[in-house]
Amino acid sequence: MLDFGGETLVLTHDAMAEGVHFQPGQDPADVAWKLVASNLSDLAAKGAEPLGVLIGYQFGADDERFLTGLSEVLEHYGVPLLGGDTIGGEGPQVLGLTALGRATHRPVPSRSGAQAGDGLWITGPVGAAMLGFEALRSGAVADSGAFRRPTPRLEEGRTLAPLVSAMMDVSDGLLLDASRMALASGVTLAIDSAAVPIATPEPRRAEALRWGEDYQLLFTLPAGVKAPVPAYRIGTAVPSTETPVLLDGQPLSAESGLGYEHR
Amino acid sequence: MLDFGGETLVLTHDAMAEGVHFQPGQDPADVAWKLVASNLSDLAAKGAEPLGVLIGYQFGADDERFLTGLSEVLEHYGVPLLGGDTIGGEGPQVLGLTALGRATHRPVPSRSGAQAGDGLWITGPVGAAMLGFEALRSGAVADSGAFRRPTPRLEEGRTLAPLVSAMMDVSDGLLLDASRMALASGVTLAIDSAAVPIATPEPRRAEALRWGEDYQLLFTLPAGVKAPVPAYRIGTAVPSTETPVLLDGQPLSAESGLGYEHR
Repeated sequence: MLDFGGETLVLTHDAMAEGVHFQPGQDPADVAWKLVASNLSDLAAKGAEPLGVLIGYQFGADDERFLTGLSEVLEHYGVPLLGGDTIGGEGPQVLGLTALGRATHRPVPSRSGAQAGDGLWITGPVGAAMLGFEALRSGAVADSGAFRRPTPRLEEGRTLAPLVSAMMDVSDGLLLDASRMALASGVTLAIDSAAVPIATPEPRRAEALRWGEDYQLLFTLPAGVKAPVPAYRIGTAVPSTETPVLLDGQPLSAESGLGYEHR
Repeated sequence: MLDFGGETLVLTHDAMAEGVHFQPGQDPADVAWKLVASNLSDLAAKGAEPLGVLIGYQFGADDERFLTGLSEVLEHYGVPLLGGDTIGGEGPQVLGLTALGRATHRPVPSRSGAQAGDGLWITGPVGAAMLGFEALRSGAVADSGAFRRPTPRLEEGRTLAPLVSAMMDVSDGLLLDASRMALASGVTLAIDSAAVPIATPEPRRAEALRWGEDYQLLFTLPAGVKAPVPAYRIGTAVPSTETPVLLDGQPLSAESGLGYEHR
């Protein structure tokens, strides 16, 4: 965040490495889409309106195809490419993207503002990216869109920004990201697992709560405030306990598996 | 460049790959310094005042040492770290840095404004990084500072911005970068090789003109205007000829070796 010219600039940078964040066989156009979408999702969580991106692009297997995907996603979200750098190099491809946005509401929402008593909400189902990943792996490309081309919730973020006490995007899994919000806010988040909307069949609910990359917005609202966008209330912030997240009243620790962490 | 809140934001992104832009054995603190300095040099060439940086950091051999160098260079130039991302991954390390600056003069200088009749100037000698590189390779670390920790000409860039018709930093070699300025401006740059200040012994003048990474500023001033900072007049912009650069009256083509290009 940077105050500049009477406005607040929201800045985000995400890097992705081949073999970690994407796989050698993946369509470079989809990789481009996700690189941009994940950064725009960070802006969404701050209620920011995208102003542009800069890319750090290491040449890879199919640069033209990457550029096609990059053009598509930037055009889709009306975001200009403001600059960047292209480099060579041996080994797995590493990509970086910086996104700039204009804060539409100040203070800019953060993950640290949740208060005991607040309701915990999410904008939509989790687990769609997991199913998409599995579809892609099994060759059913048509069913893998949620994994390949996720949607940053820009509109929702802007609408929510003036109302939320805390907000973040769910990139690494609902339980892990909720625990981060809880720790940052100094509360415990009590989640009712049955209230969480899932995109998977019921038997896979536990997995859906731990899989990331759906880029839903997770946010808290003061008690009694209803979300002005389609959203689901999935729990409540309570005074801090020994663990950041209570799932159906049970403590969840890192060891019990909250999700996965990209390094 | 981005107009925002009544100001103009100058944005730059540079990426560096191990094995291309730095070598596996190099001190990570120096790598950090150069990553930041090369971006600040881009801001200097735009006459911009640095506001902050975002880093895309892939973990490497000695992350603590990298962080030390990063802290040093940011503190040295009074530039805050505004954000970034850290990632893992196999293979050669790839780093990215985005720098943001505030334009101190509008229009922001570019490489495309040189006019026939303008004088061509440079802020200081070339070839120091080349000697530093050789010193480092031979183990004389103390003499390698110009290569390891180059200086972005921020003050000079700000002072020059209101006066220059074109400006850029010399990162890839004087002749190559001059040819880029010439092509962007639609002129030919006639360089007097003997007038170019060099940091090397005289016999190595031709090499010094082709070696990069000194981060001097190369700029044009209307005829009769003198540089308000220490600088050397090295040539003149003339109407476009068949080649972008004339060295002592002789055409120079890409094939004859202008310098080196990092990809």
